[in-house]
Amino acid sequence: VKIAFQGEMGAYSEMAARAYFTKPLTFAPYKEFAAVYSAVVKGAANFGILPIENSLTGSIHQVYDLLIKHRTEIVGEHKLRVCHNLLASRGSTLKSIRKVYSHPQALHQCKKLLKQLKVDPVPYFDTAGSAKLVAQSKDRTIAAIASAQAAQDFGLKTLKKDCEDNAQNFTRFIVLKKLGQAAPGGWVKRRAGVAYKTSIVFALKNIPGALYKCLSVFAIRDIDLLKIESRPIHGSPWKYLFYLDFKGHCRDQAQIRAIPHLQEITAFVKILGSYETAR
Amino acid sequence: VKIAFQGEMGAYSEMAARAYFTKPLTFAPYKEFAAVYSAVVKGAANFGILPIENSLTGSIHQVYDLLIKHRTEIVGEHKLRVCHNLLASRGSTLKSIRKVYSHPQALHQCKKLLKQLKVDPVPYFDTAGSAKLVAQSKDRTIAAIASAQAAQDFGLKTLKKDCEDNAQNFTRFIVLKKLGQAAPGGWVKRRAGVAYKTSIVFALKNIPGALYKCLSVFAIRDIDLLKIESRPIHGSPWKYLFYLDFKGHCRDQAQIRAIPHLQEITAFVKILGSYETAR
Repeated sequence: VKIAFQGEMGAYSEMAARAYFTKPLTFAPYKEFAAVYSAVVKGAANFGILPIENSLTGSIHQVYDLLIKHRTEIVGEHKLRVCHNLLASRGSTLKSIRKVYSHPQALHQCKKLLKQLKVDPVPYFDTAGSAKLVAQSKDRTIAAIASAQAAQDFGLKTLKKDCEDNAQNFTRFIVLKKLGQAAPGGWVKRRAGVAYKTSIVFALKNIPGALYKCLSVFAIRDIDLLKIESRPIHGSPWKYLFYLDFKGHCRDQAQIRAIPHLQEITAFVKILGSYETAR
Repeated sequence: VKIAFQGEMGAYSEMAARAYFTKPLTFAPYKEFAAVYSAVVKGAANFGILPIENSLTGSIHQVYDLLIKHRTEIVGEHKLRVCHNLLASRGSTLKSIRKVYSHPQALHQCKKLLKQLKVDPVPYFDTAGSAKLVAQSKDRTIAAIASAQAAQDFGLKTLKKDCEDNAQNFTRFIVLKKLGQAAPGGWVKRRAGVAYKTSIVFALKNIPGALYKCLSVFAIRDIDLLKIESRPIHGSPWKYLFYLDFKGHCRDQAQIRAIPHLQEITAFVKILGSYETAR
């Protein structure tokens, strides 16, 4: 079973995949989120794993924008505790470093440490990629912020563990498979006694109180909302798509009635997937 | 009157400020959004102008996260049509360039052109800053994506105008002043016969149908919602703050009643400002 993810080996996405899938698997790293999505759609990978939301910095817009293409289905999620590490070549010390490379979000999450060390943050494509860069350059004045896995993969020295400003730092990942295609090896079978959630996306009709009416569909059926995210509609400035996560499976009794009700009052609704809620 | 903005001179924020304020003014460029916010709070500038939302890439999270500090008030907004330009040193051609520097969002908005030119995108702090970098280096293999203003300011050659994939590319800016302090020079007086909007932020109580109940406050009073944005609450993973824009001034009749009603059913509500709606 092949899992596509964004970033170099050692990326947080790889750690999430290793934690989510318990059986042996192989990894296919891609440079961009869109390439992961394509790999799943084209069958180059059985599953893709993408970060959708961080508990500090919020939703990852590019991933939401891929989901609207609706050629994949969300079949699972995983919540990963993000522990950032300051990594450098052997011979480097906290005093020798001048520049720190990482993904802008990781740099943003370690602002206090970077300020304290008086080093310049340098944005880079991803965390593991910046670790690779540091390993290849052997420059003692540069460091990277990346995962413990990246330190291991690239033979880097950990100058500091737990670099993040806020320890309540989790990233929620979604697991995708191609829409309409059976998952390999008995994965993603619905299980009894497990909490499910459903993700949908919809566009409002141009009617008064449109969003309020959409949420009433769930409120009157006591279906709990878990998350709402609005994204701009391209070509229609200041109009939005709404991504909604709610409790329950889309084939549960109340949810079976909620969806057609929502369709009545919206321009369109797409079900992105029903899947086990991560603990 | 001094206006703080993020980026180098020639940034889109400067263009927005020039368009919004009609009287003569001076500019104070800052490297980060947070520094602009601080300049306004500390009185180093009379106003700050910050991008809050782009019609293609969506909300600018860092700016939303500054507003929750609630030491400023939104007093206006401006919608700027974003026209990206590919800028390089004199002597450069479309064929000589290999790398293109810009803010990640600008690179993302010009993906088609970058792919077509087969050049490497290099993320940089801001658009105008990347123009400055290109101007200083005089390297014929590098270019920047930035505003027409930046081309002028740094004496760069425009290799290509209107580089953006999608022409419906607008950025909405908000104008801030210090909370509770009178605006200088008669600015920001309420005018009759003008459409106003109000921005608020609130946190839900842990009650069933919480968000639905909050939106009912506006629906039952026929107050139109313009935008909803959720942001994570730091330290409480998977709980959210809601930023809401609605039509009308907070001192209009229906709105005067809506706010206490909302306070009844939420953990907190803050009014971020009532201001003229930009055309």
